Amino acid sequence: MKALNITIIGLGLIGGSLGLAFKEKLSTPIVVTGYDVSQHIIDIAINRKAIDFGSTNLQDAVQQADFVFLCTPVLQMFPIIEHIAPYLKRGTILSDVGSTKRFLVDKIVDMLPVGVEFVGGHPMAGSEQSGITAAQPNLFSNKYYIIVPAANTSPLAVNSLINLIRPTGSLISIMDMYKHDLCAAFISHVPHVAAAALVNLLDNCSEEESLKLTGGGFRDTTRIASSNADMWADICISNSEAINDGLKKLQILIGEVITAAETNDRKKLHAFFSNAKQRRDSLISASP
Amino acid sequence: MKALNITIIGLGLIGGSLGLAFKEKLSTPIVVTGYDVSQHIIDIAINRKAIDFGSTNLQDAVQQADFVFLCTPVLQMFPIIEHIAPYLKRGTILSDVGSTKRFLVDKIVDMLPVGVEFVGGHPMAGSEQSGITAAQPNLFSNKYYIIVPAANTSPLAVNSLINLIRPTGSLISIMDMYKHDLCAAFISHVPHVAAAALVNLLDNCSEEESLKLTGGGFRDTTRIASSNADMWADICISNSEAINDGLKKLQILIGEVITAAETNDRKKLHAFFSNAKQRRDSLISASP
Repeated sequence: MKALNITIIGLGLIGGSLGLAFKEKLSTPIVVTGYDVSQHIIDIAINRKAIDFGSTNLQDAVQQADFVFLCTPVLQMFPIIEHIAPYLKRGTILSDVGSTKRFLVDKIVDMLPVGVEFVGGHPMAGSEQSGITAAQPNLFSNKYYIIVPAANTSPLAVNSLINLIRPTGSLISIMDMYKHDLCAAFISHVPHVAAAALVNLLDNCSEEESLKLTGGGFRDTTRIASSNADMWADICISNSEAINDGLKKLQILIGEVITAAETNDRKKLHAFFSNAKQRRDSLISASP
Repeated sequence: MKALNITIIGLGLIGGSLGLAFKEKLSTPIVVTGYDVSQHIIDIAINRKAIDFGSTNLQDAVQQADFVFLCTPVLQMFPIIEHIAPYLKRGTILSDVGSTKRFLVDKIVDMLPVGVEFVGGHPMAGSEQSGITAAQPNLFSNKYYIIVPAANTSPLAVNSLINLIRPTGSLISIMDMYKHDLCAAFISHVPHVAAAALVNLLDNCSEEESLKLTGGGFRDTTRIASSNADMWADICISNSEAINDGLKKLQILIGEVITAAETNDRKKLHAFFSNAKQRRDSLISASP
């Protein structure tokens, strides 16, 4: 049985964890090749057995690949695709793990040679930790992995990707790019901006005293504000429409609280918090 | 040695946990009396050994007390103080565990009989859980317990409260009410409003699809949105000035992200997320 060649471009938390998960959980023979700009990171990835081989040369890394996973911040993907497209063999399936999809999926079809298909992916398995050292084989276990096909992606290519991903323990769900980006903005991107804003807000308060009041609430609410800045800057650029729409609505909701507090409208404040509690409790109890 | 009489008014998460902690951790003899409007909750508190005796009558509950702890939502405290003041014996120390202080501390001095002193307290040990069933003796362990004296509180009364609280494992810190309310707004109250707003924002997104995208990030960022609505409505009313100031600044910070994303200003977005990451990482590493 010929081994399946999988290439992972970008050996950070997600790329490294994909390598670890594939190598630990797939029952068919595979060879995982990793690309990174840093030889040091490649060495760590080999040492951790996240990849079998590594290269700092994109052409070398992709030309044997049956599957290529783009695991860089979103804005770095276009130049990489332009670079590798001529070297992808017929039948290769190209995927990504970016948190925004329309920005990429809309344009990618015209960039690929005949016989190469793109199937987007978004594992909902991020963390405030980043880098190859944080990678772990069980990162995707029991987490949703959203599959986002392009307009012309064949069902065969979608199924091939799903068959590869499923053994990682992911819960597979297919979603179109518009719905994905809208929902991701509400559930992930806007909360991320809010968490970072809550931390930056402390620039208005003397740190020494405020530190004493930092409890578990602040720690959890702002946990994702410790994430990778490059990744999140790219997310804001590449899903700006949906994110800005959500952020403007968030400003309005915050404004309603301000007005209610200024007018001593306890009933309205109570409804605001009560609605949030009920909604979150039912949301969390229904999630995996 | 005469037993110390401690009365806890309001047997929720904090009141119940104080009872459990006092009874488990104090080395001197104590008698803990609990007041609640609900006999059922009193029965649970006795059964859990959070209190020795319980009463639904305020006068009965406080008249022997050496210490009285107000553990209700903040706006319920004034009518309770008016009710109990005539029955407090000389030498009683009255405290509270509210999340806002100025609203109470400013006015309380004139409400108390001669010989009764007030020393405010704020254990930074909240949780999204609430009620007597969530109470636990170690809730305060290694958490800050902020002591907020009133203008005329004697050092002796402050020390008496500290000596009682310290065995719970709390880290004691004394802060004036202005600083407390300002810092609490930034570190706790504004994040709480933001977390609830992020949940209510989902009313703008179809729940069915968004559910799939709910990962650990959303769960943690909005954890405190599952808290008690009564408590938080009262906090917004009783610290509205500092909270609204923080919320308005938060709106401005969110507006800066919107503008940066609209103008493709990646550098500014990166600085925003990078600053948040650095600030949070150093804040968390310095906290207990």
